Amino acid sequence: MDMWFPLMDETKKTFDKLHGYYFEDLELGMWGLFSKTISEAHILAYAGVSGDTNPLHLDKNFGSHTIFKSCVAHGMLAAGLISTVIGTKLPGPESIYLSQSLRFKAPVFIGDTIVATVKITKLILLKKIAELKTTCSVREKAVLCGEAKVLVPSK
Amino acid sequence: MDMWFPLMDETKKTFDKLHGYYFEDLELGMWGLFSKTISEAHILAYAGVSGDTNPLHLDKNFGSHTIFKSCVAHGMLAAGLISTVIGTKLPGPESIYLSQSLRFKAPVFIGDTIVATVKITKLILLKKIAELKTTCSVREKAVLCGEAKVLVPSK
Amino acid sequence: MDMWFPLMDETKKTFDKLHGYYFEDLELGMWGLFSKTISEAHILAYAGVSGDTNPLHLDKNFGSHTIFKSCVAHGMLAAGLISTVIGTKLPGPESIYLSQSLRFKAPVFIGDTIVATVKITKLILLKKIAELKTTCSVREKAVLCGEAKVLVPSK
Amino acid sequence: MDMWFPLMDETKKTFDKLHGYYFEDLELGMWGLFSKTISEAHILAYAGVSGDTNPLHLDKNFGSHTIFKSCVAHGMLAAGLISTVIGTKLPGPESIYLSQSLRFKAPVFIGDTIVATVKITKLILLKKIAELKTTCSVREKAVLCGEAKVLVPSK
Repeated sequence: MDMWFPLMDETKKTFDKLHGYYFEDLELGMWGLFSKTISEAHILAYAGVSGDTNPLHLDKNFGSHTIFKSCVAHGMLAAGLISTVIGTKLPGPESIYLSQSLRFKAPVFIGDTIVATVKITKLILLKKIAELKTTCSVREKAVLCGEAKVLVPSK
Repeated sequence: MDMWFPLMDETKKTFDKLHGYYFEDLELGMWGLFSKTISEAHILAYAGVSGDTNPLHLDKNFGSHTIFKSCVAHGMLAAGLISTVIGTKLPGPESIYLSQSLRFKAPVFIGDTIVATVKITKLILLKKIAELKTTCSVREKAVLCGEAKVLVPSK
Repeated sequence: MDMWFPLMDETKKTFDKLHGYYFEDLELGMWGLFSKTISEAHILAYAGVSGDTNPLHLDKNFGSHTIFKSCVAHGMLAAGLISTVIGTKLPGPESIYLSQSLRFKAPVFIGDTIVATVKITKLILLKKIAELKTTCSVREKAVLCGEAKVLVPSK
Repeated sequence: MDMWFPLMDETKKTFDKLHGYYFEDLELGMWGLFSKTISEAHILAYAGVSGDTNPLHLDKNFGSHTIFKSCVAHGMLAAGLISTVIGTKLPGPESIYLSQSLRFKAPVFIGDTIVATVKITKLILLKKIAELKTTCSVREKAVLCGEAKVLVPSK
């Protein structure tokens, strides 16, 4: 029996393994996180992907003349880490991102480590929607707060 | 006179040219946009920057088993284009992003061209805050709607 | 009326907004700029894109034995910023780059902030060609000088 | 004897091996080339490095409305391949790029393979300067022509 050509239900098993939580698995207070240190390479790559070439992010001379006294990371780069938690940890793959609110509280500088956390605050059974409190913090200080709604598949 | 060392006010001129709109320059209804076609390279680069390795974005087998029948772009990748308009066009560099709401309306597929638009809906003179309607659309259909608040420097 | 399908002329409005200057809008002496701080990430990314793996740019041991006493950025990486001004600021999208001369005056080191400026020096009405003086400078010292010719669309 | 800590002259040998041609090694007519297929990933990465977010390169809708009927690669991305030949092949590392002229002849599209060639046309012994004819071609048609001057180290 050739191990490299899996049985018909192998694909299903792979899919199940990749799948995140089902709505029935979720409970209030469950939480997840993802963290990442932001380097100059992140800002360069993100500028390319987003097209956001604001000199606040790219030009150290310009940055030093702003109230931040330095270049800062794109706020949406930090926001992306929330989506990382939602899409890979809680609820995970196959959940559908419905909405996200973002309140930018403080700048993120090169070298900062962002910790993004997501916590379930409400579960709406009829609609299979989970509401989440979402936060990005640097050195235990919130840099980004918000709430998300996610549609979670049912078993 | 050394041609390579321009006059003292060269830095100020550079800074002024890079600067975006001042609050006094803004009017209700002003709008700006940025557009970009999303390739596989964008999804790879964004996954690397954000750490969002959700198979919905990266694994075509997995994507084909979801309700989208395909891999889709990260929603936050589209959201980033709104920030591009705000940070590079309207109000532009030196404006400070206070908040953003995002409602994800439809998926973005590889090859789709996203048009992100920002329109001034309210100007709060005392606080120097501009409120913006923000939209990302693909083939003139909204994929992402929301509102932003931006603090805009005064002259 | 379906809010997600805007009026027929939406594409035209988008296209007009993305368009740069028309030839008729240009005047002698108009100028634009773009600036960027060069990090190691830029040199890595540019080496990958261009294939220019010259150890002068990538190998600090090699760099330290050269007359520059250090690794230096690729000259063409600096030259690219001129094209950024031409393609995004002045004359902007839809202008067609005909020619560029480049005289490399001084090295660019990691951490340097390059300011690329473009100034209109001649307008040839019959051919719709704009001639530009192009300069890249670091700390107000020219590192790269040249001239460009650009074909600019007419209204 | 520990092989991993080379003798004092090992560094020199490494340096010599990395070194390109010396002026004395060059002859009229010598030539070198470098070739590369341009993908969407190149355009994304180059847009990030250069900051050139011209929709002509990034937005397929915009590109389709231009005279090129498509997105095209950044011209300076092609020009960079000339520098690759000069810096890695002929004359190679340690040569100093003095000047380059560029005449853009035709667009480069995604999927095109650019062949960059450099040929020695003049050797100025007193100044140790080599003059080069430089060409980028796609399917044996020139897309970019020009001349370069390079200062080449002497033995």
